[in-house]
Formats: sequence, structure tokens, C-alpha cells
Amino acid sequence: MASWFRRSRPRVEAPTLTPRDTAAAALRVDLGELAPASDVFLGHCAALHLVFIEQLTTAMSNAPRVADKDALARVSGVVLTRYLALAAEIERHQLDKSDIMQPHLDGVEEFERRTQGGEWYEQVASAHVTIGFLTDFWMRLAAGLPGELRGRVTTALSSGDLEGPVHRILERAIAANPKLSSRLALWCRRLVGDTMLQARSALVLRDDPARTESQIEPVFTELIAEHTRRMDRLGLTA
Amino acid sequence: MASWFRRSRPRVEAPTLTPRDTAAAALRVDLGELAPASDVFLGHCAALHLVFIEQLTTAMSNAPRVADKDALARVSGVVLTRYLALAAEIERHQLDKSDIMQPHLDGVEEFERRTQGGEWYEQVASAHVTIGFLTDFWMRLAAGLPGELRGRVTTALSSGDLEGPVHRILERAIAANPKLSSRLALWCRRLVGDTMLQARSALVLRDDPARTESQIEPVFTELIAEHTRRMDRLGLTA
Repeated sequence: MASWFRRSRPRVEAPTLTPRDTAAAALRVDLGELAPASDVFLGHCAALHLVFIEQLTTAMSNAPRVADKDALARVSGVVLTRYLALAAEIERHQLDKSDIMQPHLDGVEEFERRTQGGEWYEQVASAHVTIGFLTDFWMRLAAGLPGELRGRVTTALSSGDLEGPVHRILERAIAANPKLSSRLALWCRRLVGDTMLQARSALVLRDDPARTESQIEPVFTELIAEHTRRMDRLGLTA
Repeated sequence: MASWFRRSRPRVEAPTLTPRDTAAAALRVDLGELAPASDVFLGHCAALHLVFIEQLTTAMSNAPRVADKDALARVSGVVLTRYLALAAEIERHQLDKSDIMQPHLDGVEEFERRTQGGEWYEQVASAHVTIGFLTDFWMRLAAGLPGELRGRVTTALSSGDLEGPVHRILERAIAANPKLSSRLALWCRRLVGDTMLQARSALVLRDDPARTESQIEPVFTELIAEHTRRMDRLGLTA
């Protein structure tokens, strides 16, 4: 088990970082050297986005309020747009979508089953936590792609607003029922392990475990810090 | 029970119609006089489109092949685009989305539960039959909307290609496993009753049952004829 699984309380930010440096810092630390080849990257990331669409549509389906259904339908449309951009890259590289996505279906679907909540607000929280974390992760992993593809993938993965609307749904649900807080905090904490394992499954690990570890660790520390900020904004303990 | 429920074998076309007249005939026979007010129309039709998105996403989720998942994700995007156009009309009329959609949620969700198949090809067939039939129905019902709204709703409901991709998925599934034919034919026949009841629930019925009946009957006969053609193209008995 890697050491970030044992860290009980992640360091949120290095003391020298001000909030406005966060985005810049995110670009400095990357996973480029552990990134898979372009076809594996695109196949895995595209398959994962289909699972994101499923997660969001399930949450939409179970939402009791029209306003939440509407917001989740739109957010699912944002993910579809990202998926279509990834699919366009696959076609641009004359790769076969089925060949490169099929090997990842079992893994991403198993991940979805493990992180799918029972109640609709758990489903929304799952989407918030897992899509947020994994999008941050794949953005960093994209550093390992060749130049133009890297730019287009980064643009695709950051298109549209996904986090804002999902945050607001959870914020309102918690305000309407403050008892949700502790339950959701536990639920979200439970999701992080599976989400990190899903992220880790995309890495091409080196033969030298110590070196691998030293490359992964700072990135995962950052990703957990972003997760913690996401929880903090909802008033939830990460 | 209205007489079209008892008709064992619908008349496919009036003898005087050639295929190229069909679209024109569809425009001649409409349900305008039984259409609900604009706000009820928009609320019910928008709520129904959210259910269509759920149906298609469930089918996508369970599809074993990447190509089918990809096609179903795109088709779900077509429905989302139609939903967003309906939602834009709701906003344009300064109506409250929740107020006008909420009363229809129970009905459309119960309809979805009754028509959701167990196997993924049944789910695809359900989407094909119910979305096809109900889109034809709501297009005709739109004749009762005031001028400009009618045009915009008709444009919204006919945007994108939904039927073609879903037809091709079923066609391929049947070709790969010819035994599916008889099972799917029965399944699709089973869907028609629930689908007609869902359609009927949108009509504002008159006090005079005989007159109501005489207005509904020719339209439902046409809708069943279109359903029959949809099945015929798949080699399925309607």
C-alpha cells in the first residue's frame, strides 16, 4: 500500500503557496513520465467519461427536484462534450475506438459499481468527488502526451463547468438537511480510496518502486489537497 | 377502453396514400384541438425528455460493445439538445421550470419503469419504440400551440438524428443473433399499450366521448402505422 493511503490528514498546501499560486503549482507537478502511450490514454480516459455520464444520469434520474434534474442533465452534457472531444482525437489519430476503449470497460465499470451511492445525494456526492478528483488527475497525466495532443486533451477536459453546478446541488441539499453533513463526509471519505486506485490503474509503473513512489506521491498529495478544498467548500471534513 | 386498443391489426395506410404522401398526411391529421395549454405542453414534454435521456443512458451503460455505447451516448446528446430547446422555451415564456415539470414527473417515471427492459437490447428496443412513437405524437400535438411556439417546438423535436443510429444498433444485434427477432417483436408489441397510455395522458379530453374518440382515432391509427413501419424496417412483426 502506497504511503498516501496511510496519510491520515493530508497537507493542504505548502506554506509558501498562496491560493493564486495553486493553479501554477498544479502545472509544475505532473505525472508525465508515468503516462501511458497516447492510444491507451485516450481509450482509458474516454471509457471513464462514459462512466461519468452514467453516474450523473443516475443521479439525475433519482433527484426529487426538477431544478436538480435540470442541472444534472446539463452537467452530463458537459461530460458528453468532453467525451466527444476525446472521441474526435481517437478518430484524428485513426485509432479504432473499440480496440482502445474495450480493454478499460471492465475496470471503469467496476469502479462505478463500487462508488455508486444508494441515495441520490450520495450519487451526487460520488459524481462530485470522483469526477473532480479524476479530472484533476487526468489533466496532470496529460503532461505525458505529445505536444498538440496534450493541448487539445487539456482543453477538452477543462471545457464547460461541471464542478460549480454539482457543488451547488450538494450545498443546497446540506442546507435543507444539515444532518446530511456527517453522513456525506463519511461517504466522501470512503470514495477516495477507490478513486485513487482507479487513478493509479492508469499509470505505467516503473521497475523501481522507490522512484515510482517518489514521482506519484507529490501529485497524489496535491490531488488530495484539492479534494480537501472541495470538501471544505461544502463544510465537510475530508 | 378506446377502440384502438381493441384493434388487433392496425390499418397501415389508407389505400390512397403512396409512401411519399405519408409525411404530408401526417401534417394534415393533428391533435391540435386536444392539446393542453402551452405551459402544460412544455412541462410534460420536457419531463418526458429527461426520461428519454435516462432510457438511453441505461441502454448505453449495459451495452457490451463500445461502438453501441458510443452511438447511444451521442443519441442521448440529441435528446439533451431537444430538452434544452424545450427548457429555453420555458424560460422564454418566463415560466417556472419546476412548477410546470414537477406535476408530470410521477407519470413519466412510472411509464419509464413499465417500459424499461431487462436485457440491454430490450432497453434499446424500448428507446426505439417509445421515443419514436411519442416524438411522432408530440409533433402532432404541437399543432395546438400558438404560431411561433409551434414552429420552435417542432424544430426542437425534430433536431438531430435519433432514429437512424438506434435502428442500426438493433439491426446489427438481430443480424448477430437472429433468435432475438421473435422475442423483440413480442417485447415491442408489449410496449405499445403503455406508450399509447402515456401519449393519451397528455390530451385534454372533451366532455363528449364520441367526438373525442373521432378526433383521437385517426391520429393513433397513423402513429401505429408509423410504429409498424419502424418494426418492418427491422424485420419485426408489429
